[in-house]
Amino acid sequence: MPEIGELAETDAVEQPAPARRRGEGRRGRRAEAGAPAIQQRPRQVRELLDRPTEPIDEEQVRAIDDAAMRVLEDIGIEFLHDTALDHLRRAGCTIEPGGTNVRMDRAFVREMVARAPSQFTIHARNPDHAVPVGGRYQSYVNVSSPPNCMDLDRGRRPGRREDFRDLLKLSQYFNCIHILGGYPVEPVDLHAGVRHLHCLRDKLVLTDKVMHAYSLGTERVVDAMEMVRIAFGLTEEEFAARPHMYTNINSSSPLKHDWPMLDGAMRLAERGQPVIITPFTLAGAMAPVTIAGAVVQQTAEALAAVALLEWIAPGAPVVMGTFTNNTDMRSGAPAFGTPEYVRATQMSGQMARFYGLPMRASNACAANIADGQAVWESMNSIWACMTAGANIVYHSAGWLEGGLTASYEKFILDIEQLQHMAELMQPVSFNAGELAMEAIREIGSGSNYFASAHTMARYRTAFYAPYVSDWSNFGQWEGAGAQTATERANGLWKQKLAEFTRPDLPTEAK
Amino acid sequence: MPEIGELAETDAVEQPAPARRRGEGRRGRRAEAGAPAIQQRPRQVRELLDRPTEPIDEEQVRAIDDAAMRVLEDIGIEFLHDTALDHLRRAGCTIEPGGTNVRMDRAFVREMVARAPSQFTIHARNPDHAVPVGGRYQSYVNVSSPPNCMDLDRGRRPGRREDFRDLLKLSQYFNCIHILGGYPVEPVDLHAGVRHLHCLRDKLVLTDKVMHAYSLGTERVVDAMEMVRIAFGLTEEEFAARPHMYTNINSSSPLKHDWPMLDGAMRLAERGQPVIITPFTLAGAMAPVTIAGAVVQQTAEALAAVALLEWIAPGAPVVMGTFTNNTDMRSGAPAFGTPEYVRATQMSGQMARFYGLPMRASNACAANIADGQAVWESMNSIWACMTAGANIVYHSAGWLEGGLTASYEKFILDIEQLQHMAELMQPVSFNAGELAMEAIREIGSGSNYFASAHTMARYRTAFYAPYVSDWSNFGQWEGAGAQTATERANGLWKQKLAEFTRPDLPTEAK
Repeated sequence: MPEIGELAETDAVEQPAPARRRGEGRRGRRAEAGAPAIQQRPRQVRELLDRPTEPIDEEQVRAIDDAAMRVLEDIGIEFLHDTALDHLRRAGCTIEPGGTNVRMDRAFVREMVARAPSQFTIHARNPDHAVPVGGRYQSYVNVSSPPNCMDLDRGRRPGRREDFRDLLKLSQYFNCIHILGGYPVEPVDLHAGVRHLHCLRDKLVLTDKVMHAYSLGTERVVDAMEMVRIAFGLTEEEFAARPHMYTNINSSSPLKHDWPMLDGAMRLAERGQPVIITPFTLAGAMAPVTIAGAVVQQTAEALAAVALLEWIAPGAPVVMGTFTNNTDMRSGAPAFGTPEYVRATQMSGQMARFYGLPMRASNACAANIADGQAVWESMNSIWACMTAGANIVYHSAGWLEGGLTASYEKFILDIEQLQHMAELMQPVSFNAGELAMEAIREIGSGSNYFASAHTMARYRTAFYAPYVSDWSNFGQWEGAGAQTATERANGLWKQKLAEFTRPDLPTEAK
Repeated sequence: MPEIGELAETDAVEQPAPARRRGEGRRGRRAEAGAPAIQQRPRQVRELLDRPTEPIDEEQVRAIDDAAMRVLEDIGIEFLHDTALDHLRRAGCTIEPGGTNVRMDRAFVREMVARAPSQFTIHARNPDHAVPVGGRYQSYVNVSSPPNCMDLDRGRRPGRREDFRDLLKLSQYFNCIHILGGYPVEPVDLHAGVRHLHCLRDKLVLTDKVMHAYSLGTERVVDAMEMVRIAFGLTEEEFAARPHMYTNINSSSPLKHDWPMLDGAMRLAERGQPVIITPFTLAGAMAPVTIAGAVVQQTAEALAAVALLEWIAPGAPVVMGTFTNNTDMRSGAPAFGTPEYVRATQMSGQMARFYGLPMRASNACAANIADGQAVWESMNSIWACMTAGANIVYHSAGWLEGGLTASYEKFILDIEQLQHMAELMQPVSFNAGELAMEAIREIGSGSNYFASAHTMARYRTAFYAPYVSDWSNFGQWEGAGAQTATERANGLWKQKLAEFTRPDLPTEAK
């Protein structure tokens, strides 16, 4: 593996601005651009306040658990990895000689699941960007892994490194993105053999948030952990002592875990790094057509991997992922942001809480462009994640077309929604002053509250100030160019990229 | 007041299609148009299944109640109507001689509120369109009262009778619209002196759903009740025996009820017809800048009117409305679909349940066009209504620009969202077959579920089939014209208007 420095020499990654310039902060740059600062929400990961929505009752939760256990006991899961099979054989699971089907009894599964922590923290290069996972915390991950990207100016096209970097910069810029997922777009102009090195280097240089490794081959996984360790300035012991990055694996539904995913998951778990396990259970395609049945299968596939990892590395931090959704039965394509997705996500939240595991879901949509459909599918997904109590929301900003495209404009539209959700994670202000009895007495029926002392003392911070929403009246809006929300988003991502300053590297910070 | 028949002669309202043609049902017309039938949700009003989201605790609910009672006891509400003042004076309220400020003590208010039914039914000309109000029921009202309308072809313009009728037809067509609100657009080409007669006649001819009367003058209210009575074929006693229509009144916040609204409300209540009371409490403008304070004021204003109506007509059906939202403090314009609206609506739901009153909220947005902003503001509003347990959702379809414009395309986009919500009001299917153990055993890890018996038996009805969403892949979507959701909505409203057949009039039905 080349050194990070060597990689740097081959690239045109922008250098940090001179120290004094950076010392002036963002205000200086904004003033130059003549654009007002956006009122970002604080970057802390917040806790959901509302009781989760639970569409099924306790008996039904137990019925799904029982069915999932029966799948694990009687039908079994394929593990296409010899080392994994060796481990599970030693753990007492039933595997025919030379076979790959693993049956595990529920007592073993429950014992292994009980080893997993219900909450942990993933640390980032910037200590302020550490992310708690579990409990009521909800954190947001940028879009992951689309092969294409899209914006209003350049249309839809295969991703390139320039796009990859642009989307990283936006992910770093916005406080409401807490975790960097997989590549926000696949940079196809980087040779596949070294792509992971360049990509992770870009991530480490352009961002200082929580890091991710793809479980797509031993070399990638090992290199990624090593690069993160070096960039964070850690010894091997320090790196393994607590979570500093994570991976996400998908089962190859139905009922199968493939080699690369298992290999990566085991390597991270052995070094104390978290693994999100997200079965790809599309109801009607790779899982039963019923939501209850698809959640049964999802649960069985997820618990099988949890059992393996907890056997290998007791106490390994794991997350139960859900991707259960319905299929468009006319085309076989996955649908997203549907009523079925809402219910599947909420039910998955119930199952994760039943097992005491943190939970991941997604802000997904099927729309081909950043239009109204993209927004309503995403809004249903985001509300599903909130009402389900999801701890990690993947693909939070920028995902389009069922994950085939990362959209610059959709990224910005999603940011507005994530900021709305962050706002809903602040308790309603409630004290004697907030009840406003004195103000109501003062104003009576004779006037309005615009200029009251009560209003003047609070109006600057009383309400969420929108980022993309335009609240001007029709005439003003028309006079200013009659832009749609998507067109405004186009201007905003350009402005944010122009404002971007990269974070300090650790050697500079020390 | 002219007879309904006289009005008919002056207009070009389309005649019903010949009986045989109508007897063939909609299928025949659709076949002609070559368009597939849309899979509408059943027209029954459904019950919300999920526990409401309650952002404040019981103590805080009591604090708002106490503050509202103090407003009523110590500060008072203006009632600008002599008859109302006479009633309240007789009821023992404190009113200075010649004054209009009414103070009422909490024991009186609680006694009056306790008279109101927690649930009732509003009947329609078509018995199948009766709407239960209260409990867990959630019904949807079309857009009400914008002066302008808008579509992609003709742009934004003052409403005309043609638009008024078009929007009525769409409201009649879609099962998920249960109640007709005020005019879906104000038809300014009808002379103001007789507009209400023509408008209500159009409503009675083109629709057979629940009817509304504006409380904007004695004549309008009396004429409306009389026309509905005649069109429904009822005697005066039959009309007054149960709800056959309703009105909505707004307080003139802060702390004032105006003459026309009070006059209409009293006239309807006296004849047993429901009154929705919706204070116009924009936080920071006509109400305190804090959400808690605005809800205090809203509660006081609503209960004051409830007390009056229950004094006059014990047991009168009333609904507690909420319109509390924040103001854009830069412009003074109302904002909609914000995080503050979500919380205000959920808190209002808590207050309505505390008093045992049905509750009304709205699907509101501030966007100037039917773009992404319109969708996310509406989605936040719709999810607010659902999580708040709102019984009646006003402006459910078609509202834009803070209520200044009715949009044909937005109407269609909203229908998709209302159908999503209706889907979420169906319990998750859950039985042995739904858990799909046999299917999971049959498919194992070797195949997929597309052709399984379990899928084949269920796939036609397993999932919500979207109406506006386009789930085709990018190439197909591009090849078919690359339409945005809003552009597709443009085609859909034209198709629905072309398919429209008016309902039978009662004389024909008998």
